[in-house]
Amino acid sequence: MTTTPGSEPAGQEPVDARVVRTRRDVLAATIEELVEGGWDGVTHARVASRAGYSKATIYAHWPDRLALVRDAFASFGDMPHHTPTGDLRTDLVGELTSFRSAMTEHRLDRALAVLAERAGPVPELIEVRNTFVEDGERPMRRTLAPVLSGSRLEAVSAMLCGAIVHPVLLRGHSPSDEEIGTVVDVILQGLLTAR
Amino acid sequence: MTTTPGSEPAGQEPVDARVVRTRRDVLAATIEELVEGGWDGVTHARVASRAGYSKATIYAHWPDRLALVRDAFASFGDMPHHTPTGDLRTDLVGELTSFRSAMTEHRLDRALAVLAERAGPVPELIEVRNTFVEDGERPMRRTLAPVLSGSRLEAVSAMLCGAIVHPVLLRGHSPSDEEIGTVVDVILQGLLTAR
Repeated sequence: MTTTPGSEPAGQEPVDARVVRTRRDVLAATIEELVEGGWDGVTHARVASRAGYSKATIYAHWPDRLALVRDAFASFGDMPHHTPTGDLRTDLVGELTSFRSAMTEHRLDRALAVLAERAGPVPELIEVRNTFVEDGERPMRRTLAPVLSGSRLEAVSAMLCGAIVHPVLLRGHSPSDEEIGTVVDVILQGLLTAR
Repeated sequence: MTTTPGSEPAGQEPVDARVVRTRRDVLAATIEELVEGGWDGVTHARVASRAGYSKATIYAHWPDRLALVRDAFASFGDMPHHTPTGDLRTDLVGELTSFRSAMTEHRLDRALAVLAERAGPVPELIEVRNTFVEDGERPMRRTLAPVLSGSRLEAVSAMLCGAIVHPVLLRGHSPSDEEIGTVVDVILQGLLTAR
């Protein structure tokens, strides 16, 4: 009996697919533990139990908690973003609205809070946090790039991201559509006239 | 021998002063443990050792970690603020500059990060976080109150606080004076013209 490339005997997966699936399951379980219990929630035993693999399998690929968390954030990075239209106001409102949704629907609020907090005592997480946040900001900064650069780009990016981050992480308040509209309108009008 | 009220035999403190001092020492030690190690750093044993009191003394006043952390945040609340001048731009720049200083000099960055993160798994901290952040925002909101209300006040407060919180907590970047100036100028110009 011959097998066509890509087809496999029933009940068996190709090795590559199995590796991909293990990786996906383990990193998803890591994110879930992180979101529920924070940094301390991520142990090899808990991740193994949640993902349905042996601890040995997980140790073989991820020798310590940092390795697990680092890869989990890399896989977490594919957050939904707004599809740009070319209209600055529409694109900024769309991007802030996507950011707000990700905070609740993908528990990005918990992920960011854990990164903000643990990067203090665990300096190895500083780079993980910075890369994750830079990746998240990229579409918004691309939208702003034609009109802003240097310290003005930094200031406006901080205002836009901060207008979601501050109320969600520190006040338990998810900004309304009206508040997001005001944030974007104030900034766009301000940019037209401020030096 | 008689003692005048307020004077005490040498080497003895009045009971009230001793209670005040114990409280101050213990809560300062709690903040230090929290800033260094986060929520898990706050144990009665570590706080006792750092403050120089017995564990029994600490248990007598604060039966659990939450009681310690709640009182510590109440005592932490006296952050330096800008003294208002009545000029809107000066006062907003001054308040953001004080906020930035408190982040580094008083380790407010760590305190806020711990509150943001631990309010997830420890719901009793939500109120502690909200009260602490509301107290911190109050001078800025008082400055804005004559010109803003409702959802516009919420949006602008989120932008101003967020312009410090987002870069400090999530990018490890302390905004420059120039960036703070841009944040305030864009907002003030935007408010003049945006609906």
